[in-house]
Amino acid sequence: MAIMKIDVYSKTMNRTVTLEVIAPVEALKPGDTMAALYLLHGVQGSFINWSTVVHAFRLLGVNNATRTKKLAIVMVSGDNSFYHNAPDRSANYEQFLAEELPLLTRAMLPLSAAREDTYIAGLSMGGYGALRTGLLYPQVFGFAGGLSSALLTQRIEDAVDENVFFRRREFLKTVFSCELDGIEKTEHDVMELSHRLLTRIEAQRRGEEPIIMPKLYLACGEQDALLPLSRELHAEWDKLGIEHRYEEHEGNHEWAFWEWGLGQILKYLSE
Amino acid sequence: MAIMKIDVYSKTMNRTVTLEVIAPVEALKPGDTMAALYLLHGVQGSFINWSTVVHAFRLLGVNNATRTKKLAIVMVSGDNSFYHNAPDRSANYEQFLAEELPLLTRAMLPLSAAREDTYIAGLSMGGYGALRTGLLYPQVFGFAGGLSSALLTQRIEDAVDENVFFRRREFLKTVFSCELDGIEKTEHDVMELSHRLLTRIEAQRRGEEPIIMPKLYLACGEQDALLPLSRELHAEWDKLGIEHRYEEHEGNHEWAFWEWGLGQILKYLSE
Amino acid sequence: MAIMKIDVYSKTMNRTVTLEVIAPVEALKPGDTMAALYLLHGVQGSFINWSTVVHAFRLLGVNNATRTKKLAIVMVSGDNSFYHNAPDRSANYEQFLAEELPLLTRAMLPLSAAREDTYIAGLSMGGYGALRTGLLYPQVFGFAGGLSSALLTQRIEDAVDENVFFRRREFLKTVFSCELDGIEKTEHDVMELSHRLLTRIEAQRRGEEPIIMPKLYLACGEQDALLPLSRELHAEWDKLGIEHRYEEHEGNHEWAFWEWGLGQILKYLSE
Amino acid sequence: MAIMKIDVYSKTMNRTVTLEVIAPVEALKPGDTMAALYLLHGVQGSFINWSTVVHAFRLLGVNNATRTKKLAIVMVSGDNSFYHNAPDRSANYEQFLAEELPLLTRAMLPLSAAREDTYIAGLSMGGYGALRTGLLYPQVFGFAGGLSSALLTQRIEDAVDENVFFRRREFLKTVFSCELDGIEKTEHDVMELSHRLLTRIEAQRRGEEPIIMPKLYLACGEQDALLPLSRELHAEWDKLGIEHRYEEHEGNHEWAFWEWGLGQILKYLSE
Repeated sequence: MAIMKIDVYSKTMNRTVTLEVIAPVEALKPGDTMAALYLLHGVQGSFINWSTVVHAFRLLGVNNATRTKKLAIVMVSGDNSFYHNAPDRSANYEQFLAEELPLLTRAMLPLSAAREDTYIAGLSMGGYGALRTGLLYPQVFGFAGGLSSALLTQRIEDAVDENVFFRRREFLKTVFSCELDGIEKTEHDVMELSHRLLTRIEAQRRGEEPIIMPKLYLACGEQDALLPLSRELHAEWDKLGIEHRYEEHEGNHEWAFWEWGLGQILKYLSE
Repeated sequence: MAIMKIDVYSKTMNRTVTLEVIAPVEALKPGDTMAALYLLHGVQGSFINWSTVVHAFRLLGVNNATRTKKLAIVMVSGDNSFYHNAPDRSANYEQFLAEELPLLTRAMLPLSAAREDTYIAGLSMGGYGALRTGLLYPQVFGFAGGLSSALLTQRIEDAVDENVFFRRREFLKTVFSCELDGIEKTEHDVMELSHRLLTRIEAQRRGEEPIIMPKLYLACGEQDALLPLSRELHAEWDKLGIEHRYEEHEGNHEWAFWEWGLGQILKYLSE
Repeated sequence: MAIMKIDVYSKTMNRTVTLEVIAPVEALKPGDTMAALYLLHGVQGSFINWSTVVHAFRLLGVNNATRTKKLAIVMVSGDNSFYHNAPDRSANYEQFLAEELPLLTRAMLPLSAAREDTYIAGLSMGGYGALRTGLLYPQVFGFAGGLSSALLTQRIEDAVDENVFFRRREFLKTVFSCELDGIEKTEHDVMELSHRLLTRIEAQRRGEEPIIMPKLYLACGEQDALLPLSRELHAEWDKLGIEHRYEEHEGNHEWAFWEWGLGQILKYLSE
Repeated sequence: MAIMKIDVYSKTMNRTVTLEVIAPVEALKPGDTMAALYLLHGVQGSFINWSTVVHAFRLLGVNNATRTKKLAIVMVSGDNSFYHNAPDRSANYEQFLAEELPLLTRAMLPLSAAREDTYIAGLSMGGYGALRTGLLYPQVFGFAGGLSSALLTQRIEDAVDENVFFRRREFLKTVFSCELDGIEKTEHDVMELSHRLLTRIEAQRRGEEPIIMPKLYLACGEQDALLPLSRELHAEWDKLGIEHRYEEHEGNHEWAFWEWGLGQILKYLSE
């Protein structure tokens, strides 16, 4: 297993960014490609969280041993952007994740370009970002997974708290680039996006663009204050008949839960 | 000479940031402290610019050999912030540079806490940031240096260009957190800050707080389109009687010039 | 918690080496020092093992929270040297660990220079190296801990296996810089070193140099083939009346055991 | 231009090693491959020398701009091995460079597998290592270049100096795994290897294996004490009719010369 730290210029971010990659390169034969899992951290974090605090390296090793197709993990920093574009600052995280990063990493590393081999997942803010990005770009991602997802846009007024920096009204308005009262029916909301994508998929059955739903994974800790939001989304997906795997498990909004969760995602991807 | 890459949580940035440090640690005896030079990169860059593209490592080695007090270089990433606070995003670069970074690096490394041993310098956007931060926090920094400084706020309307991402009106308004028409008389402008600091210093002569002007260094390439802005500031400083060193030298807005410039700064600091 | 990667020249190794450091620098106040735990990896490993495969970062965070004195972890690469000097190659790992590394890291970082704040531990080859170095340099190290320690020198002929690169007779002779038949009564053997140090300590009671035994910790997995060697040493220490903590625990020669073991060491050090 | 730091397990070194790679990945299109230049440092150095002290990053950028085929630079650490196998320590640098590293880096990165796109060069000890490895493995490397090459084996008795660690007789015997008196007619000597390869190439003209001479580059500083050794090799190559480029240039055994030399090599490779 190789661990790589890469500084490279990003056109959508308009600056040099750092990526971290963990990949079973020693096991590759000439011409082999790997599937890719892009992992998004939470508020206050950075790309280092997955390799230092969660067992990404060890979990990936164990799971690669049993896979038919090798898997690489790519970790990026999303600052506290909720993985939305910040057009006023020319730092476009959504575009970076969906448009630039897959191409850039495939130019560097032997990664499969197939949708079925391209996965995105995250924790907390990154869980929201992964589900949103996966549903917005189903032609790119074959899987989207959220752990303890900060699905704040489902009930945005409940999220506002002037004592927590990332819950301040001003912060949320800036991050989502809009007033908060309209947010629930925009593409900033995972529930709304699920509806829209379903509609697009149904439309295409009558002869239009070939889009399919990504595989979806949702999990949350039983002691996590964000649990109601995951339950809501799970219920909505059930109601809409959107296939997904849903798990609740012992744990709070904490590293031990995310380690368990990453393990579950890796197992699911190797099924 | 040691080269260090450090990931650490920043309270003012509300996330984990990466620092790079170059320091002559092998030459230290127990109890020794080093002076610190904080270096700020330009638009589209990151902390890696100084060690990979400019000869920071080699230049520092040569200059440490002749210094009586050892010097460390600390490099940070300012994204494309112009090193201003972004309160709407809770990413406060100005506070980070002036309040948190010196304390944080002194907690990690054997750095002198004295103002006379604390320096800040940068190139282009970082030149602006270094001069502005140095003049805003003269109690922290004993030296501020700007290379090819992007002193855009001196004539902000000339800077606007909708075809260059960091010159778009929207971008500039966001970065400086204000409308552009009032900017020239605010603390966002180095010239205005020079006036204000001079006034504070004169005021204190009549018995108030003990503030002194940082040593100032300004240089620009003879072929650089930003040269008029440096000349303006140089002339203003002369007019105000603010002591500083000013140099023009063969070169454009380019790495070769910045390498020369960093060499000049290191020489000046070791005088 | 900061994570640092440091490239620095080593005089005893005669080349640039890489160190990794994890330290709770955000929690330090001016003038504070930290205790230091030096961690040694096993055969085929490198300094990255502790931060990527074992939970050093997370374990350290948890344990620092409850400590009165902050603790930093320093990780180095010992190649496959068993942490012995290789004078023929001018790569002197023992000297590096015992003489240069503590001074070098104290010149860089705010580490306590006190013996009671200086610890060494390792896994497998590194367990052997840590116990040996701790017992050879009791004036430097106040604690030495071995996990699944490769105490091969206790019964060196049993260790020889021409099919395993680090058990080949030629390899062992080179690494220990001696013929194998005399090794059991040399300072290459932890058991022999324990006797010698005890003798020195007893001698000094009659008025000589002030040496004390480091605190000793020994643990091994119940399914580990190396278990008999740890049991032998434990029994010998008991017989000699050398105080130490000994633990056996579910597990083989594997990462899960070492993670448990590092957790135990950190708990012990914070008692 | 991306800069990558990679920790990966090496089978020939029997441990985790660190590689550094600089590559113009942003300029690649799907399916593109790059040529690869493997760079070897000198005594007391490490892989970091090329990116921190010599301008590898900037020089590569400039030279890639004018190339038809993109070029990546790969940097490794050879400790003080002279890039020879150390079979007694199971650390086989020669095999690593010639057999494992090209395959490993091609599995990770989009590198051409063609001999004409695979280059090796170095400075001082690394210049010797690059020329030796290139001539020993002409089926792998299409180019070998030496800067200030430590061609000590050409007159090994002159090299012995008990006051310089890497010139001690014991050290040299260990590194070259043989007594010194026979070394000049072995494959440890670049001159001898040139003869042997020429003989193999001539032999094959009569219908045997298709081997060709790598392109050869040799340069040394006019003030460098090692200059006579480069002159000797240059003269010998001329005598044998082995095509090569030879340059002498202002400079001592120093970074400024190596920077010039790397620039010359990059220019030559882009011709």
